[in-house]
Parts: sequence; structure tokens; C-alpha cells
Amino acid sequence: MAQKASKLVIVTEKVLLKKVAKIIEDAGATGYTVVPAGGKGSRGVRSSGQPTVSDAFSNVKFEVLTPNRDMAVKISDEVAAQFFDDYSGIAYICDVMEVLHAHTF
Amino acid sequence: MAQKASKLVIVTEKVLLKKVAKIIEDAGATGYTVVPAGGKGSRGVRSSGQPTVSDAFSNVKFEVLTPNRDMAVKISDEVAAQFFDDYSGIAYICDVMEVLHAHTF
Amino acid sequence: MAQKASKLVIVTEKVLLKKVAKIIEDAGATGYTVVPAGGKGSRGVRSSGQPTVSDAFSNVKFEVLTPNRDMAVKISDEVAAQFFDDYSGIAYICDVMEVLHAHTF
Repeated sequence: MAQKASKLVIVTEKVLLKKVAKIIEDAGATGYTVVPAGGKGSRGVRSSGQPTVSDAFSNVKFEVLTPNRDMAVKISDEVAAQFFDDYSGIAYICDVMEVLHAHTF
Repeated sequence: MAQKASKLVIVTEKVLLKKVAKIIEDAGATGYTVVPAGGKGSRGVRSSGQPTVSDAFSNVKFEVLTPNRDMAVKISDEVAAQFFDDYSGIAYICDVMEVLHAHTF
Repeated sequence: MAQKASKLVIVTEKVLLKKVAKIIEDAGATGYTVVPAGGKGSRGVRSSGQPTVSDAFSNVKFEVLTPNRDMAVKISDEVAAQFFDDYSGIAYICDVMEVLHAHTF
């Protein structure tokens, strides 16, 4: 049952939620997880100022399990090309991963 | 102080929060983290429809640091056996991990 | 474009949000992500009791991409020294990571 996979993580602004989700789906990924997020990047503080309890989570973090690195890179390249000139964002891969149980693989 | 560990990640429906927490505790794990989550899997869109700002986070993501892979697999097997026929869910392991500081290890 | 990095994860109490953010910034990290979190550690249940839908997320999880392990350890040591005697917390590193796109690196 165990399978190797790559985990692609994308953190970006919440306004891009649906557009990034569409890119992930169009790339053929069978599922993803979205988590509310705040933070700070080199474009200055992400979300509204120093993170606070009430308004810190105006970003989103996507996690996508992909069957191989190529799909992860394809999604990341597309998201970066479309949005990262104008919006805050970061994309990275965790390589070591073992999928134990899933409906989504 | 540094210790190796496995990180088990389980994403499933929020209604299972307490039941999954109990399985984790019964397996002997000394702690876990829970994060609100939304997303999409092969059973169709998780949570209520295309993720939106207001209703996207009807899932939960558990992260459990376990001292070895066996405990992670045991928890994952139990959660999948009890719930993954009827509920959306995915479970996976990140193998490479170094615990620096914790009350929980 | 791909770069290796370490990912430092710190889960602790929400009251420490600004103080931990300052330690991360002072260490020279160019960005971080914050996610609401609940959970349970060896000091007893983190947040207010058994996690529930309404009050589970009184912790925060920081994720910091650092260019090397040394910066991650420095941040972790500082946070643990200042706070982990009095507050719940855990800090760990994911070693295998590839940064694809970012404003923050």
C-alpha cells in the first residue's frame, strides 16, 4: 500500500485560492489540502502587518501530493509564472514521503 | 538533544477529530498538532464545494511525531481501517526529521 | 532555480506569536509562515482541553525555510531557551527540501 510521492507546498495570498486550485487540478493532481496561513516574506509582511491573532491568516498554504517530482515542478512553474511577479508566494518540495492510505492516490 | 523521528500526517473530515485524536493517544504518541484544513480529493471536493474563504476549512490535518515508523504505521492503519471507507482521508509519512526541542519527546 | 534548504517547524502557544516572530526575523530568516494549530503534548492537552471545533486552535505553527541547518538550530535554541520552560512547544527540522520559486529566498 505504501507509495512514494512528492509533496509540493505553495504559500500565497488568499485571493489566489481558486486560481491556484484550478492549476493544481488541471495538472492532473488527484487532491490537495488547503490551510489558512499568515507570515512574512521579503516583499514585506504578508497579510496585514505584524501577525496578530485576528488578522494573521490572510494567506493560504496548499499541500499537494504528486506521484512524481515532474508534476510538482509543473504546477509550481505555472503558479509562479502567473502570479509571483505580482503576489507574495513561495513554492517548495519535500522529497521523502510515503503514502500509507488514501482515497486520493 | 537532536533526535530522529517520523512525522505522520493525516488529513480527514473534522467530524472525526476526537476519534482520530483518541487513536493517536491510544497508540502511545506523546503529542500531536491539529490544523484546520480544506481541500479536494478523489471522492470529490472535500469540505463544501470549491474552497472559499468562508467554508474551506471543514477538514482537519493531524501531524504526529512518532519515535519510529512502526508507531506511525500503526496509527495510520487503525485510522484507515475505521474511517477511510466512509470518510475522505489521506495518511502519509515524512521520514527525514530531527527533533530539536520538545516537551513532548 | 531550485535550492536546498532546511524547514524549521515550531509549534507553540499563540500568546508567543510576536515574540517568536521577532526571534525568527532577528536570526536573519527572510520569511516564515504561521498557521493556527491545536493539539496535545506531554504537558497535557494544548489549547483548551480535548480539541473541539470551536476552541482547538489556540496554538500557532511556524514554518521557516532557512538556507542551512545552522540558522534553523539557532532559532530553535533561542525559542526553546526563552519559552519552553514555561510554555508548551516543540521544534523540529525537515532536512530534505527543494525551493522552486520564492520571493523570499
